[in-house]
Amino acid sequence: MTYCVGFLLEDGLVLASDSRTNAGVDYISSYRKLHVFQPSADRLFILLAAGNLATSQAILNWINRDLNQARREGPHPAHSSAHLGEGSASGTGVQSPADLLTARYLFEAAAYIGRLSVAVQNENHSALRQVGASGEATFILGGQIGGQAHGLCLIYPQGNAIMATPETPFLQIGESKYGKPPLDGVGHHKLSLEDAARLCLVSQVITRRSNLTVGPPFEVALYPRDSLAISHHVKLERGHPEIAQINKVWIESQRQALQQLPRFAWETP
Amino acid sequence: MTYCVGFLLEDGLVLASDSRTNAGVDYISSYRKLHVFQPSADRLFILLAAGNLATSQAILNWINRDLNQARREGPHPAHSSAHLGEGSASGTGVQSPADLLTARYLFEAAAYIGRLSVAVQNENHSALRQVGASGEATFILGGQIGGQAHGLCLIYPQGNAIMATPETPFLQIGESKYGKPPLDGVGHHKLSLEDAARLCLVSQVITRRSNLTVGPPFEVALYPRDSLAISHHVKLERGHPEIAQINKVWIESQRQALQQLPRFAWETP
Repeated sequence: MTYCVGFLLEDGLVLASDSRTNAGVDYISSYRKLHVFQPSADRLFILLAAGNLATSQAILNWINRDLNQARREGPHPAHSSAHLGEGSASGTGVQSPADLLTARYLFEAAAYIGRLSVAVQNENHSALRQVGASGEATFILGGQIGGQAHGLCLIYPQGNAIMATPETPFLQIGESKYGKPPLDGVGHHKLSLEDAARLCLVSQVITRRSNLTVGPPFEVALYPRDSLAISHHVKLERGHPEIAQINKVWIESQRQALQQLPRFAWETP
Repeated sequence: MTYCVGFLLEDGLVLASDSRTNAGVDYISSYRKLHVFQPSADRLFILLAAGNLATSQAILNWINRDLNQARREGPHPAHSSAHLGEGSASGTGVQSPADLLTARYLFEAAAYIGRLSVAVQNENHSALRQVGASGEATFILGGQIGGQAHGLCLIYPQGNAIMATPETPFLQIGESKYGKPPLDGVGHHKLSLEDAARLCLVSQVITRRSNLTVGPPFEVALYPRDSLAISHHVKLERGHPEIAQINKVWIESQRQALQQLPRFAWETP
């Protein structure tokens, strides 16, 4: 499993991930799940991945391959990954771009990654199903294309996507339940990037405490709106004192809150 | 869905449940999931149920029927539910009792309920599978039989059970992930019954905030060890001011904790 969370803020974006990948409990390893793409100066994308590692790695490879092709051969190359799953929406006007360079909107970039994802899953679907495995992967894509607003979306394994909004500013993928209450409790669109980053790290750290399939290093990237650059990229390795500090502060606050909760009627004051 | 949690404490037991039952999102209703059985003065059982409502209601009916039969006809009646699933372990010495009156140990009571559960599920399994539904139910059983220690166990849909221990003092069934971090964070075997009851209510209230399938009334029962009686049974109906108060205290503590977390290196102090 994996746990990733992204925050859409008035001031920008915050995206965070753990680094635990496991196939069963006896094959646990570390893989980065936070990937930054800046194919040209006018655009920046941050991609978080959860689900089948082979699927998400294949998609990263296709994204990079398409960018390399486009750089060598100019836009709309003949041999791009556009063949992967292309055609279904042809002629409808609803066609995803050929790569992250030619996407004109963030939602087009999401549609492109969604199309790659469906195509990669389809290639392996029947072989995986025979052994009872799933090739599904889910993504969070955040970023900005110059001249437009920054945005954040969740790309489902089926290739479609939903966008975060000021009312529902955070999106989660993977092992998302343990870490949701603090986001619901104190998360909102107007948090500072730093407070949102702290909140995402809390969400990661308490998830790790309750579930073995989520683990450090924890990564968090801060993107100030309209900057077209990651301002800070923090990585907390296993044993980093800040992880212990977050745990300590959070648990101590719960202990104090427990003492502040209303007494029952039968308790002497 | 449903969310139930039980705590094994040095001083006794605390068991808590929500009351939300849903079949899809357009058929949501309230059912009690916390059931107390005191078949004789020397024993008390508290049963929490999650999963298929028909299965758990059938099991409650069988339990009561077996008790009525035993009271009328004396122990080991000819027409008890013992026919339900009986026989598989005959002759091995590993045979569950015929009812809650004849159970000599808490684990025997758990084995009895597990056997009823498997039998009820088997009766409906193929019909339910045809419509893609599951008849599975999971239970938490807490209680005490005079002369023995109080105990708490989780009965799986397969009929087997695990016991809570001082090291792992709480058990959860149903929608358990959202509410687990506070239990992991500050829950332990030596909490007072009242503090454990507050912690269980917090766990319920934050779960309800993050998941629509869990909802009030919230119930919590406190059992002081060796008393063979529930000392307090609290029920917080929808709109009860204590639910709002729990939410408020918990969220305010998270807000304060967020401000106490370490600053990042680049932030000015």
